[in-house]
Amino acid sequence: MSLLVVGSVAIDNVQTPHEIRNDLLGGSATHFSYAASFFTSVRLVGVVGEDWPAEHTALLDRRGIDTSGLSVISGGSTFRWTGRYEPNMNDRETLDVQLNVFGEFNPVLPESYRNSQFVFLANGVPAVQLKVLGQVPERRIAVADTMDLWISTQRDDLNKLLSQLDGLVLNDSEAKLLTESDNLVAAGHAVRKMGPKFVVIKKGEHGAMFFSEDLSYVLPAFPTENVIDPTGAGDSFAGGMMGYLTEQGNFDPATLKIALVYGTVVASFNVEGFGIERLQQVSRDDIEDRLADYRQMLSF
Amino acid sequence: MSLLVVGSVAIDNVQTPHEIRNDLLGGSATHFSYAASFFTSVRLVGVVGEDWPAEHTALLDRRGIDTSGLSVISGGSTFRWTGRYEPNMNDRETLDVQLNVFGEFNPVLPESYRNSQFVFLANGVPAVQLKVLGQVPERRIAVADTMDLWISTQRDDLNKLLSQLDGLVLNDSEAKLLTESDNLVAAGHAVRKMGPKFVVIKKGEHGAMFFSEDLSYVLPAFPTENVIDPTGAGDSFAGGMMGYLTEQGNFDPATLKIALVYGTVVASFNVEGFGIERLQQVSRDDIEDRLADYRQMLSF
Repeated sequence: MSLLVVGSVAIDNVQTPHEIRNDLLGGSATHFSYAASFFTSVRLVGVVGEDWPAEHTALLDRRGIDTSGLSVISGGSTFRWTGRYEPNMNDRETLDVQLNVFGEFNPVLPESYRNSQFVFLANGVPAVQLKVLGQVPERRIAVADTMDLWISTQRDDLNKLLSQLDGLVLNDSEAKLLTESDNLVAAGHAVRKMGPKFVVIKKGEHGAMFFSEDLSYVLPAFPTENVIDPTGAGDSFAGGMMGYLTEQGNFDPATLKIALVYGTVVASFNVEGFGIERLQQVSRDDIEDRLADYRQMLSF
Repeated sequence: MSLLVVGSVAIDNVQTPHEIRNDLLGGSATHFSYAASFFTSVRLVGVVGEDWPAEHTALLDRRGIDTSGLSVISGGSTFRWTGRYEPNMNDRETLDVQLNVFGEFNPVLPESYRNSQFVFLANGVPAVQLKVLGQVPERRIAVADTMDLWISTQRDDLNKLLSQLDGLVLNDSEAKLLTESDNLVAAGHAVRKMGPKFVVIKKGEHGAMFFSEDLSYVLPAFPTENVIDPTGAGDSFAGGMMGYLTEQGNFDPATLKIALVYGTVVASFNVEGFGIERLQQVSRDDIEDRLADYRQMLSF
């Protein structure tokens, strides 16, 4: 079984209170794909410019990530994001965004991707996310991410998207914005009533909440002292979650819960290095070990 | 076995986005005592003025809370606090504080309290907390709460107190202030190195973190949509925790963890009503039922 992801592929410049790092492999689809690759093969759809280093593609290929859907636009430049984290390592300021070729992103799936059954639409323009759904008629589960910009400016398209989704992942402030509710439990249920069968609210260092018609729960983040770069934490969370679902081949409630736990664990590794550097050092065994620690932490 | 608590007893005026309620039974020692009374008898030490309604004392007495340590100062007025909650129900603004008789609080324990083995020092002047410790020579465990004001202005006394404590509970912003660390895991360990054998960081709606030399973990709050009044949530958490420890008669690591869970559950009821009104409707069976739900929520 393969997992399809459509989203941004970028080059990031990241400033933290302790270090500045430039030209990092970034983007939502990148973090997602790498995280999911611990569990399943991945089909990546994205767009980059001719400045894109070939070694990045090679790195993804070696992880079983199919990059035949990664378009390289000659004469174009790759999406670049520059951000600075506050000392608390949660709040961040975007210093510069150059959408470049990602501004014209119009994903057309390779023929070999169109039978995808597990689908993730990383954060992007809702109209574009909708167009992707039209290209995967055999999908069994479609989950999307979104962001404040689309909630505020593309509400009609977003509502249409929500009605077609199995799941939505979004962060706490986005859930509050979308529902105009200040209570996250109320917000989670309200988002679910907009269409998705389940909703995951990401709370960063405070964990994640799950909502379906029959079930709601909250899981804490895995506590780590060693937060180097939170960029991509939410995407790696989604990648671990969707990767595990794809590996299992189902998304019943019990599997979904374990999938959220895998997402939590993978995200906790993601933040321990810049870009995907820490994930590159990690094995599936490391993930299983940390999951066992996490399970122990929540047992009493 | 009895649990000793020393702290404020107050009359609160609370404003939320939905309702204004005046003359509520409040104060840290009150919320703590009521929460602990589900598990054990309690010995309360506090001070009130002649405006204190006798029915409040009667209410505490009926819960097995010994009020022989509650001094009524004739000619004095009870500590009064007025606060307003923001729409998010987490942030609040103190509109008015009248310390009244609590400003001169100089707790002298009744003879019958001096053999107390389980001791909780609710938030108060560190010098006063230290004086209480001198009056309980047979104590087996002493746990204290503190606040930003004492961290900023009474550091020497606070350091002395920390060196004599078994446990400290404080909230997340206080832990960051005390340690000048922005990472809560680092902050928790740093506080522990200041003296207490264990540290509990309260994160409000995001749960609580535990730190000892050998162990650290985080537990989420019990998610509730029905947040009416968060006043006293931290005190009822501590009351549930210390009440359970006293009931069990020990504080080994496994018992401490379950105690944090009971604290979490009791606090989740506390916020579902103004003052202690919701706790007054709850039975030990209700607590056990919600604890079972919580355990289920964290199982996967």
